[in-house]
Amino acid sequence: MNRYWSETVRGLSPYVPGEQPKIDNLVKLNTNENPYPPAPGVLEAIRGETTEALRRYPDPNADRLKAAIADHFGLAPNQVFVGNGSDEVLAHAFLGLLKQQGPVLFPDITYSFYPVYCRLYGIDFVNVPLDADFAVDIAGYAGRCGGVILPNPNAPTGRALPLASIETLLRLQPDVAVVIDEAYVDFGADSAVSLIDRYPNLLVTQTLSKSRSLAGLRVGYALGDAGLIEGLERVKNSFNSYPLDRLAIAGAVASFADDAYFRETCRRIVASRERLAQALAALGFEVLPSGANFVFARHPAHDAAGLQQALRARRIIVRHFTLPRIEQFLRITIGTNEECDTLVAALRDITGA
Amino acid sequence: MNRYWSETVRGLSPYVPGEQPKIDNLVKLNTNENPYPPAPGVLEAIRGETTEALRRYPDPNADRLKAAIADHFGLAPNQVFVGNGSDEVLAHAFLGLLKQQGPVLFPDITYSFYPVYCRLYGIDFVNVPLDADFAVDIAGYAGRCGGVILPNPNAPTGRALPLASIETLLRLQPDVAVVIDEAYVDFGADSAVSLIDRYPNLLVTQTLSKSRSLAGLRVGYALGDAGLIEGLERVKNSFNSYPLDRLAIAGAVASFADDAYFRETCRRIVASRERLAQALAALGFEVLPSGANFVFARHPAHDAAGLQQALRARRIIVRHFTLPRIEQFLRITIGTNEECDTLVAALRDITGA
Repeated sequence: MNRYWSETVRGLSPYVPGEQPKIDNLVKLNTNENPYPPAPGVLEAIRGETTEALRRYPDPNADRLKAAIADHFGLAPNQVFVGNGSDEVLAHAFLGLLKQQGPVLFPDITYSFYPVYCRLYGIDFVNVPLDADFAVDIAGYAGRCGGVILPNPNAPTGRALPLASIETLLRLQPDVAVVIDEAYVDFGADSAVSLIDRYPNLLVTQTLSKSRSLAGLRVGYALGDAGLIEGLERVKNSFNSYPLDRLAIAGAVASFADDAYFRETCRRIVASRERLAQALAALGFEVLPSGANFVFARHPAHDAAGLQQALRARRIIVRHFTLPRIEQFLRITIGTNEECDTLVAALRDITGA
Repeated sequence: MNRYWSETVRGLSPYVPGEQPKIDNLVKLNTNENPYPPAPGVLEAIRGETTEALRRYPDPNADRLKAAIADHFGLAPNQVFVGNGSDEVLAHAFLGLLKQQGPVLFPDITYSFYPVYCRLYGIDFVNVPLDADFAVDIAGYAGRCGGVILPNPNAPTGRALPLASIETLLRLQPDVAVVIDEAYVDFGADSAVSLIDRYPNLLVTQTLSKSRSLAGLRVGYALGDAGLIEGLERVKNSFNSYPLDRLAIAGAVASFADDAYFRETCRRIVASRERLAQALAALGFEVLPSGANFVFARHPAHDAAGLQQALRARRIIVRHFTLPRIEQFLRITIGTNEECDTLVAALRDITGA
């Protein structure tokens, strides 16, 4: 505590991101990064932008990028908002759309940044429990509230909701903003983007960090009705006029230009996930069905924290959350098949399977 | 207005940044960019970082950059906060330090983003008038308040305060955070960094956008007591874990590695400023004394808006604010001597001097 802090700071419980160790030769399966490099055109575009023009401000509206994203999804540019990673986009959505009289609803087990945003902006929230199978139960999202936010697939469970359930939710809550956080959607869930034109309260957020292999570039975006997007623009323009630098804009535009590469790397990760899930099941793990680039798994006979430590001793890092209901699970990012094989061999050894 | 907006969004009056026109061959003197390129090592460092490692998240704490900045200023790394441009750093300072029971004090004529942050976060503020010569009068900052923020040099006037006045202010307000926004300090004012070890309530913000020719890379930072910095970290970690991408970290570190280049480009801009100020005075302009990379000038016989339009017709753009007390001034960024000469020739023609 410091006497100059605001009351807001005193009440915060900041988010703790997955570790980014500064050591080499790790099998790093803890922060849902992509095992494949960005599309070749991305690095080329960034190099092309690395000129003395960096002395100039970027386009504050990133119009080139909005146009590229709008094209990709068949939307208009004014249905696209871009930000410095989808965490920034989500922060603006909490302040600009979800801060209302009623509480925001989200699952008890979900992206642990949501309650952090609520404390930052003084927003009430209510956790809706996942069912016994760790699936989102849409019936729990009825009734008066200030807004809803759900990841699809959910994190850290990986479980995906069918599009029909998202539409049910939108019909249940027509009077508040409904944010579907699709950070992992490209690995096996149906995107709600197709519903945007029919539901003016639907905001879909996505990121280039996972399926586009650009966690290090910090680009995220939101898609929705032009009125919702304008609300986010007003927050952004009251916070930072230029959230995306010139290199991030150029790299992100180039990523959307190579759809074949994008689809092929996603396909490979999905195939590796199914292969890893089978191998883990063969070791006795319970593996939740995943639509993401990670699996969420527990072993009936081995403590998750102990497994994490034993893996770490073998230079393999995975994520473990010491939270109610999920403290016996490990969240394992899908690496290359070779990385997954290294993990499975280590777990076979540790569990004595 | 949109029915899904929060009350916060409804009450915003977003900041309007200077125009970034998408046309070439302009003499662009409207957004205080540097006429010289970034240090050569910066472009090289960015190219070196443009690899497949972009698939990985950046260091959320940007430790390399904090160490480089701390070294440069003779501070400890925990006295350094970094952000996605100094606008983001200022936003966090408003929410984390300046949001208090009492109003924040800042000048009536100053960086027009300050009242925007106040509306974003629900912070009261009181404007303290500049004196008749458009100088900050420190005596006006006494009395109960929630915090103080002042640019030094002030924008858009360019007028600098001596360090003794900053120290007077710190003595007047020991119980609240005092933020000195030094975006332009490298062009001719004394930095308050030397006071940090004696005043635990002093936060100094700086940017790489102006004196380091990196507006397009988006890097800003704050320097102060470790307790103040920890408050900013708590806000940052409740907003976006990774505000600086890998390329921005690498480029910024390289900028601090080339001090000779930095000092030489600042020296050239200061020399061009004095030359331009004299030429404008010779055309009959009143030019405020400037410690920044711009001048603020008015002509007794020519309307500022008309001058701005006439310059624009000649493909020269400068900034004009339609605000009380300063609506007859133009803010002119210091370009190369050649750009300044083009401007002066155009103004000679327009004013018939």
